[in-house]
Order: sequence, then C-alpha cells, then structure tokens
Amino acid sequence: MKELNVKVPAVQETSYPIIIGSGLLSKAMKMVNDKFPRYAKFIVSDICVANAGLLKTLDPQGNIPKFIINPAGEQSKTIQTVISIVEQMEKAYMGRDTVIIALGGGTVGDMAGFAAAIFKRGIPVVQIPTTTVAQADSSVGGKTGVDSTISKNAFGSFHHPAMVIIDIQTLMTLDDRQYMAGLIESVKHALIMDAEYFDFIESNIENITARKTEILEAIAEKNCRIKASVVENDPTEKNQRRALNYGHTIGHAVESASNFDLLHGESVAIGIVAAGLIEEEMSLADNAQHKRIRNILARLNMPAKIPASISQQQIIELLKRDKKAINSWPKFVLLEKIGKVHCIDNQWAIDVDEKLIRKTLPKLY
Amino acid sequence: MKELNVKVPAVQETSYPIIIGSGLLSKAMKMVNDKFPRYAKFIVSDICVANAGLLKTLDPQGNIPKFIINPAGEQSKTIQTVISIVEQMEKAYMGRDTVIIALGGGTVGDMAGFAAAIFKRGIPVVQIPTTTVAQADSSVGGKTGVDSTISKNAFGSFHHPAMVIIDIQTLMTLDDRQYMAGLIESVKHALIMDAEYFDFIESNIENITARKTEILEAIAEKNCRIKASVVENDPTEKNQRRALNYGHTIGHAVESASNFDLLHGESVAIGIVAAGLIEEEMSLADNAQHKRIRNILARLNMPAKIPASISQQQIIELLKRDKKAINSWPKFVLLEKIGKVHCIDNQWAIDVDEKLIRKTLPKLY
Repeated sequence: MKELNVKVPAVQETSYPIIIGSGLLSKAMKMVNDKFPRYAKFIVSDICVANAGLLKTLDPQGNIPKFIINPAGEQSKTIQTVISIVEQMEKAYMGRDTVIIALGGGTVGDMAGFAAAIFKRGIPVVQIPTTTVAQADSSVGGKTGVDSTISKNAFGSFHHPAMVIIDIQTLMTLDDRQYMAGLIESVKHALIMDAEYFDFIESNIENITARKTEILEAIAEKNCRIKASVVENDPTEKNQRRALNYGHTIGHAVESASNFDLLHGESVAIGIVAAGLIEEEMSLADNAQHKRIRNILARLNMPAKIPASISQQQIIELLKRDKKAINSWPKFVLLEKIGKVHCIDNQWAIDVDEKLIRKTLPKLY
Repeated sequence: MKELNVKVPAVQETSYPIIIGSGLLSKAMKMVNDKFPRYAKFIVSDICVANAGLLKTLDPQGNIPKFIINPAGEQSKTIQTVISIVEQMEKAYMGRDTVIIALGGGTVGDMAGFAAAIFKRGIPVVQIPTTTVAQADSSVGGKTGVDSTISKNAFGSFHHPAMVIIDIQTLMTLDDRQYMAGLIESVKHALIMDAEYFDFIESNIENITARKTEILEAIAEKNCRIKASVVENDPTEKNQRRALNYGHTIGHAVESASNFDLLHGESVAIGIVAAGLIEEEMSLADNAQHKRIRNILARLNMPAKIPASISQQQIIELLKRDKKAINSWPKFVLLEKIGKVHCIDNQWAIDVDEKLIRKTLPKLY
C-alpha cells in the first residue's frame, strides 16, 4: 500500500465592487465592457423585467444574446431552467470567455449565478439586481442555487459575482406587494446586526414606503455594508453567515409549502414572527421588543400568520429536509435583542428542540 | 454613485491522500469512516460495477444508501442523472453532513463528483476508481462534469475529492476492450511529461496487457504522481494543466460524434494520432517518433481512424463548441518530442489554424 498526497494550492484574496446609484442601468453595459473587454456577453433576465422596460434600457439595440425566463419568479427557479440557459449559450457557440449579466430579482440572480458556476466549469457573472430583495441581499455574497422538486436550493454552489451594479431607479417598476416584501431583508439585516439601522428604518418608514430615492440609496448602501462584512468574515457559511438566515428556516418551509403563493419576503416575515415566538418561549426577548418588530412588519403589509392551507406537519417535514439540517433537523438563528444574535459557544445558529418548535407552530395560525 | 468593495477571503492550501494498493476495496468503508466519523455515507455506482461484485465488496451488508446508475457509461452521463442522484439523497433526508463515495469508472466519478459539488452548495466526495482510465486520470484533480444534449461536460465544476482509494484488483473485472482503452491516459501522461515512463510502458507492454499486479501498481503510482504534479501547479487549468488535454480536443469531438460507440480511450487514441499528424504538418516531430507511438496504440488494440459514419464537418462543428474554445475555436496541445509538450510563449495549448485542421482531417479516414 502506498500513499501519495495531492496539494490543493491556496487561493489568493480577491474582491469585487458594488456600484450603487440612480440611473446606472443605461451605463451598465459600458461598465461590463470596460471590465471584460475581450469577453462575449450573455444576458439572463425574466419576462417581468423585460415588460417593465428594464431590458431595453440595458440593451437598447437588443443585439446581445439573451435568455428570458418565462414565467418569472420562484416557479421557474428549477434546474430545468438552468439547463435551458446553458443549452441556449451552447447553441450560440459561447465559450468560457463569456460573462453572464443577470438582470432581475433574486430568482434571476440565483439562476444566472448558478448557470455561470457550472457552465463549462465556471464563468464570471455580473449581478444587476432590480428588486428590493435582490438589492438588499441575494446579489451580494455568491450564493447561487435552484430548487429540486423536493426542496428549495437543493442544487447550488458558492460563486461570487465579478461585479454588482445597483440602480435604485429599477425599484420604481415594482408593484407594491413585491416592493414591500423585499424590504424584509433590510429589516432582517437591522435585527441581526445593527440596532441603529432598525431605528432608522422605523423613523423613515413613510419615506421608505413612498420610495424616496435618497432613503433607498442609504438603505442599499447600509444593506451592502452589513452583508459584505458578514460574508467577508465567513464566505462559505461555517458560522456567522448563518445569522443572515434569521427568519429563513421556518420562512423557507412556509414559502415552499405555499407553492409560491407567498413571496420570499412575506414568508420570511412569518419566519421572523416565528423566531420571535421561539425567543419568547425561551425567555430570550421581551414582549415590547416583539411589538416593535411586528409593528414594522405590519407597516410593510406583511402577513404574520401561516396560511390555513398549510399544515403544521408539512412545516415539520420541510424543516427536516432543510438544506442546512444536520441529522435531519436544522439549527435556528435567534435574537438576544434587536441588533444582536443570541450565540451559544460562539455559534450563531443554535439547537432548538423539535418539541419547542411543535409547541410554537400553533401560535402562528 | 457610491462604490463599495467586497473582499473574498483567501483560501488556505489543503491536500488529499491517494491510497494505492491491491485488495483495498474491502477496507475502503473503514478508511472513509475513519476520515468522516460523523458524516452520513451515500454510494454512487453503476450497474456494471454492481454486477462485477465490487459493490458487494465495498458494502457487504448492502445497507448504505446508494444510487446505481443504469445503464452504465457515457449515455447516462447527463445532468438528468445528476438530478436523480440529488433527489434520491433528498428523499433519504441526507444533509450537508454527507459524504458521497464514488465507486466506478470515469463516468461514475464525474457524475458523483458533480453531484457532490452542487448538492446543497457542496459536500465531500471520496473517489474509488475501478477502471484503468479512472485510476490513471479522472479520479485525481477535481474535474467533474456531465454532458448536455449538445456537448460533452457542458455542465461541471472543480471539486477536489477528499480522498482517492485505488485498488488494482478492481481492474481484473474489466473486459479487454475497456481495460485497454483506459491505458491510453497512461500513454498520454508519458507522452506529455516523461520519456522514461514511455520507455517503461513500451518495454512492459506484454506485462501490462496481461494485467500483472506489480506493473499495474507501478503504473498507477506513476500516473498519480504525474497528474498530481500537473494539477498542483495549475489546479483550475489556466495553462499547464491543459497539457493533460493532449489528444483530447479531436478525441472529444470523435467521442461525441460516435454517439458513444467509441470508448473515451479509443477516441483519445484517434486524437493522439491526429495530434501526431498535426505535429508532422507543422514539422514539429519526425516520422520515427510517430511510428513508436502508433505502435504502442496498436498493441493496445486502439483504432487509428475516424469511423466513416462521422463526417469531417461534424468534427469541425464539435470543435467550435469545445468547452475550452475561445472565439469558437479551441487551442491544441502538441508535442515537441516524446515527454515534452511544444509550448509557445510559455503556453501549453497553442493556436492551430482551422485550415490546418481541415487539411489534416482527411488523413484520419
């Protein structure tokens, strides 16, 4: 018996820029071309973004090869759509010297990012998020993934974007429901990391719902700073990055079980309420704090209850299949107070017994 | 306009062991359990390997969850098979604390490795290669991938194994054709990196075809040392690693066009002959050298001609879709002499004009 060792060399630190502003979309292709002068370009977007006119702003001539996801949204976020993207790129004879430009919300970014991660073993992706949820969260950090027929993000990889371009003006095309739901990721950032930011959201809630450009730019920057600091500390989610999952464990289960009737942000809002109930059950947080949080969620028109069509048992089953589950049960992120996650043994996600979850679930109906 | 920067932290150097011996398969699960005591185990194999009795040697009780690819071989090496593997793991409630054990040839290793790369954003894989081609080449180096309906390895990623276990005894189960074809990767290693190794193969060709254990252990070790040194220098194939592609550019096209009637090694053998003809056309190598190479390929019963059912135009079309193509045309690896790749400007893969390829192709019929 012989043993050899194969070294896997170290990878140097790199970085990517996030560019935030108003009216950037019409200049975005120039930014991409400046960064990737010798690369072919391929746009991935969806039918809603195209219908809202954003695709035309990005590519006025319409001559950049593209894939338009149709229908838009979670129901298309499947491995089959990624296969279609890759095969369309192949039909256009695109090689490894291609950069994918993802124009759209979180699902477009996830699908385009995952396609870039696995196309011919990996090509660069530029994220141009156009929704509140994508600008606050999913476009930064390199998580990509698509759903299987069984669970969310069953397929995925870490693939950092080469550049992120955030144009606040694109948010003006969103309908109220989508706009509001996406703000939940901003609330989440404040809850886990920054009490002052929570105060800021609370005192500016009317300007936020009125989509005031200056406030939105400030929020975009704040979100990116928080997200960047967390993913820099823990790029592949060994510990601190799990904090970003606040409200998402039960949120993902509710989202899945609702068959995408609920938006991601609406599901996470329910998940945040659930986390609050668990915190109360564990005597972590007081009732006054929950009132403040619930009040903000209500001002953003978020649901606080699980739809009656979803059974408690369904939620338990989906929690067991959570992709972060260890021994078929996930860990939970909980707050000590607004702006501070409750860590045990320096772990940001902690054990919560299935019994305690079963005890909490009825309060969400 | 504001610009933030997100750091992507450096990744430390790591390493993984390759364990080579005779009769290791019955001890392999103990090795895996020792390395991953708290991980669930999931085996990916194929029907041929199962029928040859190797699966029973690895898992005598038959109680480790598994996915058996059926039919075996290239026709199953598709994204749809990877989807089935992932969904079977999900149905078994497997989480990120799972290690995939790939038992089989190159196609099993590629599919299991790719499934591990994308399952819930990545889990470890242990490679137990059971064919000459997988032991010589594909089990080491972290390349994973599956075919689309349009081209080979259209989907893939770099995902290094956590451990490689090479049991020479598993080669005794191969039929002659598969056994011989897999040796072409050993010939390729010698051609690109090590003239003495080529002499060794030449003078031991009878012991090799007779499957003498000692010779096979020596070859396995030699192959792993060459492959390891190349991938250590260039893990993500920026330059030197391209040398491993010798004979593969036209080889892959022929393999694809043959609809898998030809084995990978047989196609690469044709590709090596093609490379030789290109080298002659470019006055790189003399005729005596080619005779030596062709003689070894003939002793291993390899074809030297492209099947008449495949047109030259088909080959040209597939070359344009080669996953390494830049501007729709691949670069080629060529020899200066046995053991030495012809580099230009320190590049291991170089430009060869489409006209020269079109001039060479007729000589392969």
